[in-house]
Amino acid sequence: MSYGANMFPMTFAGGSRGKWHVEQSSAISGPALTRVERVDAVPAHFQPDAAVWALRGVAGHARYVQAAEKVTLDAISPPLGRPEAARAALIPIRKTAAWWALSQDERRAIFEARSRHVSSTLKYLPRIARRLYHARDLGEEFDFLTWFEFASEHIAAFDELVGMLRRTEEWSFVEREVDLRLVLTV
Amino acid sequence: MSYGANMFPMTFAGGSRGKWHVEQSSAISGPALTRVERVDAVPAHFQPDAAVWALRGVAGHARYVQAAEKVTLDAISPPLGRPEAARAALIPIRKTAAWWALSQDERRAIFEARSRHVSSTLKYLPRIARRLYHARDLGEEFDFLTWFEFASEHIAAFDELVGMLRRTEEWSFVEREVDLRLVLTV
Repeated sequence: MSYGANMFPMTFAGGSRGKWHVEQSSAISGPALTRVERVDAVPAHFQPDAAVWALRGVAGHARYVQAAEKVTLDAISPPLGRPEAARAALIPIRKTAAWWALSQDERRAIFEARSRHVSSTLKYLPRIARRLYHARDLGEEFDFLTWFEFASEHIAAFDELVGMLRRTEEWSFVEREVDLRLVLTV
Repeated sequence: MSYGANMFPMTFAGGSRGKWHVEQSSAISGPALTRVERVDAVPAHFQPDAAVWALRGVAGHARYVQAAEKVTLDAISPPLGRPEAARAALIPIRKTAAWWALSQDERRAIFEARSRHVSSTLKYLPRIARRLYHARDLGEEFDFLTWFEFASEHIAAFDELVGMLRRTEEWSFVEREVDLRLVLTV
């Protein structure tokens, strides 16, 4: 296995290593992940020796975003790794069999026409950097690993963002969700 | 790793084992695959000991098909494994970086509005069973492994189908394609 350009494999390893300290770990839907002290984010796929758990995903092309939305998103999305972004959230998600049985146009309609996943989140983006790792095709226990980075002063905005998404129709198709809040350590 | 219901992991192993005898192997675009005698189709992901090459993919939800198309497709698509289907084709495909940089609506427009990938292939489907395995997220050398099964009397129809697809705009985004024709042995 080897990933080409514009594909970003990632392993999030939970255990006692890594620069991200786990401040809080909440099971939003379904079973929790075993509580760990730290998360190590390693840009490759492997099975870490000492980890309590390891979640793998790969970021690549967008699955629902349309051309006009992509222009808007690209213009306002900050990069990962900003020095002021000392906070992160790792939110692994699994959607129901009913979601995956829908056709592309039905999933898109729920995603944007009815849940406004893009348009209602735009106002948060200049403050919150994010990357979506796909895990379903890898046979992982979650379908997606969502990753967010922000400064401490934007914690409330981030809480507002995830609270809003959890009230959408799209989220009625989420059967497992764990919300890990992380703090950068030096 | 473990795959849930409605996901079908597959390893196609090229070598001296398996019930599919390789009748022909053609490099349509880009490098060929090493010529082998047989292909073993194993419904799991693993690294076969004795294989010359191994291609892995996973079949799951459709990425472009719309609800109305799905109803039509489901009604006329034959199952895999029909006793009369003694012929198969394994056609691994990789698309260009330009394809993957497009947004979902742009890819869908090329796929169906301009290339008629669904509508122009419908008439072949009662004769040809097929399954699309996704390989891109796995870090494989191909993005898709396309698999077709048909009776000997429908070889000409299958040749017509792939010839037509290769003349579409969608195929201008294919940078590597190998066409393996297989015969079932007992």
